[in-house]
Amino acid sequence: METRVTRLLGIEKPVLQGGMAWVSEGRLAAAVSNAGGLGIIACGAAEPEWVEEQVKLARSLTDKPIGCNVMMMSPYVAQIAPMLAELKVDVITTGAGSPSDYIPIWKEAGCKVVPVIPSAALAKRMERIGADAVVAEGCESGGHIGELTTMALIPAVCEAVSIPVIAAGGIADGRGLLAAFALGAEGVQMGTRFLASEECRVAQAYKDKVVAAKDSDTIVTGRAGGHPVRQLKNAFARKVKAAESESGAAEELVLAGSLRRAVEGDVTGGSMMAGQIACLVKEQKTCKQIIDDLFEQVEAWSGLSLQQMADRNASRSWFCGEGGE
Amino acid sequence: METRVTRLLGIEKPVLQGGMAWVSEGRLAAAVSNAGGLGIIACGAAEPEWVEEQVKLARSLTDKPIGCNVMMMSPYVAQIAPMLAELKVDVITTGAGSPSDYIPIWKEAGCKVVPVIPSAALAKRMERIGADAVVAEGCESGGHIGELTTMALIPAVCEAVSIPVIAAGGIADGRGLLAAFALGAEGVQMGTRFLASEECRVAQAYKDKVVAAKDSDTIVTGRAGGHPVRQLKNAFARKVKAAESESGAAEELVLAGSLRRAVEGDVTGGSMMAGQIACLVKEQKTCKQIIDDLFEQVEAWSGLSLQQMADRNASRSWFCGEGGE
Repeated sequence: METRVTRLLGIEKPVLQGGMAWVSEGRLAAAVSNAGGLGIIACGAAEPEWVEEQVKLARSLTDKPIGCNVMMMSPYVAQIAPMLAELKVDVITTGAGSPSDYIPIWKEAGCKVVPVIPSAALAKRMERIGADAVVAEGCESGGHIGELTTMALIPAVCEAVSIPVIAAGGIADGRGLLAAFALGAEGVQMGTRFLASEECRVAQAYKDKVVAAKDSDTIVTGRAGGHPVRQLKNAFARKVKAAESESGAAEELVLAGSLRRAVEGDVTGGSMMAGQIACLVKEQKTCKQIIDDLFEQVEAWSGLSLQQMADRNASRSWFCGEGGE
Repeated sequence: METRVTRLLGIEKPVLQGGMAWVSEGRLAAAVSNAGGLGIIACGAAEPEWVEEQVKLARSLTDKPIGCNVMMMSPYVAQIAPMLAELKVDVITTGAGSPSDYIPIWKEAGCKVVPVIPSAALAKRMERIGADAVVAEGCESGGHIGELTTMALIPAVCEAVSIPVIAAGGIADGRGLLAAFALGAEGVQMGTRFLASEECRVAQAYKDKVVAAKDSDTIVTGRAGGHPVRQLKNAFARKVKAAESESGAAEELVLAGSLRRAVEGDVTGGSMMAGQIACLVKEQKTCKQIIDDLFEQVEAWSGLSLQQMADRNASRSWFCGEGGE
């Protein structure tokens, strides 16, 4: 299949792996790109040297396009942004601020620019300053989140802009992908599903928690301080929550280093960022298996009429892969 | 079309109008039922006499099935619950607590019982105590909300129970309905869309605000106190929000009577409960027009392959009805 997203990004399948700070580095990105999607290295607040290393690592592992996610509030953004242009990284996604200062140099270098946005107004602004597409991310996703859910956000953004809309938040299998396309998306981005992939660097204990999570196992901290973060419930998250209800918004300090601790295996004292859709992630797989299974489901369910979907749903016959059947 | 939901409830189209306290009374319910969906009278905290009056009013206006939504925390629940059995109300949906005490008398009277639930665990419990179906409601909806979004909740609930799942939250047009079915639903419930119907009793000023709302125009108050409520942003909501960040959880007192004020036309000092999907509600219509337009869209888009959806989305050709084209 071909959508504007596959053509724009030069990929086989309209699936992006979400940039996850401390989590998605060169090896994961290369694995996703090799499987036909777009792998994305998260720059987070990392130093330029690390980012360059990861880009080179990914390039040594794949000849497919790769992406980098730039966190605009990174202390190194002024060095990283031009470096990505020099490295001619195929796709640059951005978050936590406006990429307007860097869009000209990125586009001149041939990089595609795809900001991650939480509302129609920001999507419009990004289109106006030259974005090639947007990732519209619903608040069911893991990590830093906005207010709108994927169900409301995708159609609202699609009505606001003409560039392709890639849906993120709440997508882990064929049902989610088809729902996203029903809402107007031309591609999807998944983070949590790839968090529990073989190639992901996070500690096995963290992956195990993602695989074991039920629907109500995530919690949002930081709302009071204006920087809400979704993560799996654990002792750490409960401590932050308790601190919040006492002092209002002291969570920012507590958070520093907490994700890194979880990535390294501290599933009690670290922040295990993950989306609500962890409830549908039931086994650890390779990135190739994740993408192959996704499109196997999609092929089986694509083209069903409403009546056929209702019949399928009544028999729960969409149980397949992911521990079902 | 026929789904387990249409057969169970004896309706033509798998669409329920969400029970909205102070908002959905006999006239609105009858209009929805006459249009082929299921109209639902919200008992809220109203007195039994009012509920009986509204059921009789609805029955005088339609010979189709009608429903009542029972708010389990109502001070009158012990009187209303048996009364609905005597009145042989076709369908009873429930919220804000467990209906376990009343399910036997309702089922004996032939009423179908459909609890509204926010998680897979509660859905499971409701199935165990005899529910005929569940409404799984995502947190994008208006009024009192849970934590899970529709994208994550629907598949999780569908995997937890065998009874039919009706999706609510974030649905206002054919895109939302198809997405809900893609996720596993066999019916949908819409509240906000019917709030801006001709037959709805709320003041014109309130409907106008729903029609004018953008995607980011709702706000959630009451999270600190454990009773989150989604409403349109206005002076009242901002006041509650400010009080919350000062005192933690004083919002419950402030809320008393606030919805009623909005229903009567006070769009500044009242609480205009509405869901995020107000952004897709662009004109006031009759209930019949709402349901007819919904299924016209669904018929046009049902059965599309992923590729066809992508092509449709690229051309934004799903703009129809609702102010598009």
